[in-house]
Amino acid sequence: MRNSQPKHLVQPSYIREILHAATSPEMISLAGGLPATSSFPTERMREAVSVILDDPTALQYSTTEGEPELRRWIAESLNSESLNTESSTPTHTDINQILITNGAQQAMDLVARTLLKAGDKVVVEAPAYPGALQVFNLARANIIPVDQESAGPNLKQLEAAFRQQPKLFYAMPDFHNPTGCCWSVSVRREVISLAKKYQVTIIEDAPYRALRYSGETLPSLYQLSPEGVFHIGSFSKVAAPGLRLGYLCADSKVGESAISDITVVKQTTDLHSSTFCQRLLLACLQEPFHTEHLLMVRQDYRHRRDTLAKALTDQLGDQVSFAMPEGGMFLWLGVNNIDSDLIAARALDNNIAIVPGSVFYPGHHSKKTNKIRLNFSHATPALLTEGIKRLAGVIKGF
Amino acid sequence: MRNSQPKHLVQPSYIREILHAATSPEMISLAGGLPATSSFPTERMREAVSVILDDPTALQYSTTEGEPELRRWIAESLNSESLNTESSTPTHTDINQILITNGAQQAMDLVARTLLKAGDKVVVEAPAYPGALQVFNLARANIIPVDQESAGPNLKQLEAAFRQQPKLFYAMPDFHNPTGCCWSVSVRREVISLAKKYQVTIIEDAPYRALRYSGETLPSLYQLSPEGVFHIGSFSKVAAPGLRLGYLCADSKVGESAISDITVVKQTTDLHSSTFCQRLLLACLQEPFHTEHLLMVRQDYRHRRDTLAKALTDQLGDQVSFAMPEGGMFLWLGVNNIDSDLIAARALDNNIAIVPGSVFYPGHHSKKTNKIRLNFSHATPALLTEGIKRLAGVIKGF
Repeated sequence: MRNSQPKHLVQPSYIREILHAATSPEMISLAGGLPATSSFPTERMREAVSVILDDPTALQYSTTEGEPELRRWIAESLNSESLNTESSTPTHTDINQILITNGAQQAMDLVARTLLKAGDKVVVEAPAYPGALQVFNLARANIIPVDQESAGPNLKQLEAAFRQQPKLFYAMPDFHNPTGCCWSVSVRREVISLAKKYQVTIIEDAPYRALRYSGETLPSLYQLSPEGVFHIGSFSKVAAPGLRLGYLCADSKVGESAISDITVVKQTTDLHSSTFCQRLLLACLQEPFHTEHLLMVRQDYRHRRDTLAKALTDQLGDQVSFAMPEGGMFLWLGVNNIDSDLIAARALDNNIAIVPGSVFYPGHHSKKTNKIRLNFSHATPALLTEGIKRLAGVIKGF
Repeated sequence: MRNSQPKHLVQPSYIREILHAATSPEMISLAGGLPATSSFPTERMREAVSVILDDPTALQYSTTEGEPELRRWIAESLNSESLNTESSTPTHTDINQILITNGAQQAMDLVARTLLKAGDKVVVEAPAYPGALQVFNLARANIIPVDQESAGPNLKQLEAAFRQQPKLFYAMPDFHNPTGCCWSVSVRREVISLAKKYQVTIIEDAPYRALRYSGETLPSLYQLSPEGVFHIGSFSKVAAPGLRLGYLCADSKVGESAISDITVVKQTTDLHSSTFCQRLLLACLQEPFHTEHLLMVRQDYRHRRDTLAKALTDQLGDQVSFAMPEGGMFLWLGVNNIDSDLIAARALDNNIAIVPGSVFYPGHHSKKTNKIRLNFSHATPALLTEGIKRLAGVIKGF
């Protein structure tokens, strides 16, 4: 039996391979994109489960679109966000624009699977989230990388890429994975204007949007231009990834009835997302719990970020360089004159797991970079400090 | 923006459309494939949740393959089943052959997505489960139907179909949806022998296998020939569909490392299935709870099946014909000389929802049949009886 997917299209994620290797008790891992296990709303869930199970339909089949109450919560949350951030005109999102998915990953895959055919062009910022690259590779898309700069994508390169008539532009404007970059407002507006000019649809992947630790919330691309953007959200970072819940939001004007087409593809792939998890999540989104929980998570992660940055400055000084991320889970570290693959390999030998920058580029095997990605949301502040001591030893040993 | 999937490939499920229509309180629905909501192990879950939440990794990211304990339970369950049913040689299933999926539907979609390319031939029994037809249509496969008879597929037609070098044969040998048919042992052996002769890989979809109400358990196709079969199981019927959990089991000899290829595709589509739901399911699979629960469910459904059969005989006598299903959730009713689409439409007007046989055929719009599918696992015995009274009124009105 022949496998119809050429091997290179379905490479396992290098990060997940590292995570496998990083499970020994001596290892300190700054490799994964894991939220702090201590941040999970276990007590809220404990209280909620008993009530949820009083209605056994929580365990029954449900609609492909998702639980209406959860979709309503998301639509209202997007509406109130649009009133509270600077944007041209407040947007109105309707419940029918929301599809519940198994995390943001499935939302991305469903969009790609519904809209792309083999050979279609997709523009991505480089570096990029490897899970997105996997999705576009599996869809056999032709990936066009555009350099990311400090305030977002290089706009000249982006326009050149858009001239090649790509179908989609995959973007993560808020606290990018892996770089932590947050696009400036002017770049956001420029990107929207280019996308309109060249009729390119944008996938806005926003898993970290709620995790801002400093600065002002900026308008999402979806807020700036609902009719040209698939907006993807996640509950993995603000509630718990083990529930596997995220959502896709699309204006009815994006494509021809895009959400209903994508809903049928979702139905074909797994009927619907877990009814029980959706109801459990809803319990965690009730006020005042949700707002208090988010504040707590932000405070916790801000402290971890600051601890990591201080340890890097203390231990490595001018041997490294980085921009302080205003949110998210990652710090993108430049290490003077050392190839990231070499650092990562020697770090693993010294019980400190990090991800080399090379894996974040399409066709990464040829890409040399001196950047490494450090996660600061999972390890405790004490382990972050100890981890950077080990990393400093590794880097100084070159 | 053009949608790359032609409309006809991604038709929404007619059954799910009917389910939408069937939500009015006056409606009695025998249309869905829903388990009895009263059968869900809510009390077991209530006890278990508190312990599960003591370990917050239940809410964390997990491996794509699934929780090792759950995979071990499945492997051991397949091993003990193989010792307890008549089969050539006992099979040994290893944990590495098991991939946890979001219900059986995702297992099917992952196999199709990994192994099929557009135009590949797939053989199905007709009638067939519409969710499988959706999967193969989305994969742009060329579907070859083979008539189902009382003991399984028509073997002459099957051999003719296999001569056309199909890649897969999709089969549901135990309590088929929609017909309730259970393949005889000799048909099972014949099918395996033909599949070997023509080198066709089998997808054995076995969601109802544990729901037998009379007769002896027969060897699964996987037990008869592990190396040529993808075996798909579901926890939707024996635990709860709202958890969205099923599994794929494949011998390492099926294709080239098929399970690891499919695991990478699963990773790309949604990273992994819900950690929390997997642990909750595990709690429901503990003994003696699981065995007692299954006995209870079987007894309940046997009674519902018998109630339905009696109501049909009492109300409609020789205007209808059916074979008593030995298990599963469906009874396949032949109605003398009336087209099933007409019955279904008029039944809906009379507040009784059933599914017309036409939707179970590939390219169903042209298929005329006098068969309808009746579900007996969801409506209570009282509603089954009342529902058949209404259906009898409809049928006698033609």
